[in-house]
Amino acid sequence: MTATTGKTRNTGLGILGPDQTDLLKEVDGVFTAWAAEAGAREILPPSLYRISDLQKFDVYRNFPHMAFVAGPLDVEDGPPDPVDGAFAPNDLERPSFGLPHATCYGAYLYYEGQAVSPTTTVTLLNRCFRREERYEELRRVLGFQLREIVAIGTFEHTQEVIERFGERTEKFARELEIDLRKVASADPFFENDGSRALFQRLSPVKYEFQVGELAVASVNTHRNFFGERCSITVEGVGGNAYTSCIGFGLERWLAVLDDRFDGDLRRALEAVRDLST
Amino acid sequence: MTATTGKTRNTGLGILGPDQTDLLKEVDGVFTAWAAEAGAREILPPSLYRISDLQKFDVYRNFPHMAFVAGPLDVEDGPPDPVDGAFAPNDLERPSFGLPHATCYGAYLYYEGQAVSPTTTVTLLNRCFRREERYEELRRVLGFQLREIVAIGTFEHTQEVIERFGERTEKFARELEIDLRKVASADPFFENDGSRALFQRLSPVKYEFQVGELAVASVNTHRNFFGERCSITVEGVGGNAYTSCIGFGLERWLAVLDDRFDGDLRRALEAVRDLST
Repeated sequence: MTATTGKTRNTGLGILGPDQTDLLKEVDGVFTAWAAEAGAREILPPSLYRISDLQKFDVYRNFPHMAFVAGPLDVEDGPPDPVDGAFAPNDLERPSFGLPHATCYGAYLYYEGQAVSPTTTVTLLNRCFRREERYEELRRVLGFQLREIVAIGTFEHTQEVIERFGERTEKFARELEIDLRKVASADPFFENDGSRALFQRLSPVKYEFQVGELAVASVNTHRNFFGERCSITVEGVGGNAYTSCIGFGLERWLAVLDDRFDGDLRRALEAVRDLST
Repeated sequence: MTATTGKTRNTGLGILGPDQTDLLKEVDGVFTAWAAEAGAREILPPSLYRISDLQKFDVYRNFPHMAFVAGPLDVEDGPPDPVDGAFAPNDLERPSFGLPHATCYGAYLYYEGQAVSPTTTVTLLNRCFRREERYEELRRVLGFQLREIVAIGTFEHTQEVIERFGERTEKFARELEIDLRKVASADPFFENDGSRALFQRLSPVKYEFQVGELAVASVNTHRNFFGERCSITVEGVGGNAYTSCIGFGLERWLAVLDDRFDGDLRRALEAVRDLST
């Protein structure tokens, strides 16, 4: 059985078929179960944010080249017509919504202005949107699904969480006989020159797990950058919370499992199920 | 325990907390299990469509007042700055992506150009985006989650599917002691004058299940409109496929269960779990 994706046309906007969907949900269930075992609960973020919320994270200063924004059509003078599959910019009212390019923003906004337990861990799934030069089925998707486990609290807690789930990720891959490499990395977000200082400040630890050249998981620590920006404090400790996260690109795990099991997604599903019970 | 939604500020862009998330996923699991029992498999649509794909369904002709569209920022002459939480329309490149306002579009695009079994049933979940005069926490959400079960094939099949799941919905509500009313309705999509003829053509059967004034499920038959637009044919029958769907607004079920269980979402979760086993 070969994996097929309906209607992708290499635009990064494919519809996943039944076998792909079952496997993606199973793999996501594995990561979610890890989080639950560690006492993390799940929260559910929206697909659009107010631009003013994303501005808190310097999104439009540091990553404007990646950003998608959204707004309603301006129908005041009659509905505009798309031409060649696109509207004109002036067909829109002022776009005040931003599509996120990382899932964890939802966690910081959820706890905004609150004092949290020193060992807070949550998990959440969102679509993440990044403008790219090119898209590729499953491997580089315009609105990919990123499951994150996010630690918020003391610095020690944030380091323990990413260490634990990093090891768990390596074990998971090993058991599936997937060759995973741990690679220190600069976040592509921060590669443009002006942001190097920011990168140093944000990411004393940043690495990826790669299969071949494909990053399937990303581990980040942000010191107290997000804690400051969202005024999150730590109960009984004081000061702004430290944060870290590990993110799993679900379509990429699908691509990797498709390769590993020679396109037999049902066998891949069984293999993942056998591990996760 | 009172339901709380983080950071909604009545913009329809709330983040669901852990108890809400658990309950929403449980309820979604009930609808998904119904679909699976009926032999339906799940597919996974994207959050953005090409505008040219949504044009196939006359989206921008009939519902421009509801439409959100998206595009990348134009960074050619340096990144634009948002002012008062919004970009200027001209800060965007030509918006060529549309946010869907119904989940079932993904099913028709998935089967585009194919011959399907006369009794095809699939289920899918997506975020749906509708511009509204006002939003209200859980009850009128800018990007709400709509689980749909979609029938594609013969007219008889499409009628059997909505009848079966309509009855199942009524039984589910009855068992939870939720007072559900079946109400014939015009789709709000089709209320603007020019579209009445279209409404008649598309929806010989259209009704909603309401709790109080709140529609929590919507049942539609489209004759062969979508089958035509996506060139879907029926194996061994010929002609374009007929379609129908039933959709469940997940945040609204959360609102209704919150009311029914006086804000005790954990008790609501147990009640739903007891039924679904």
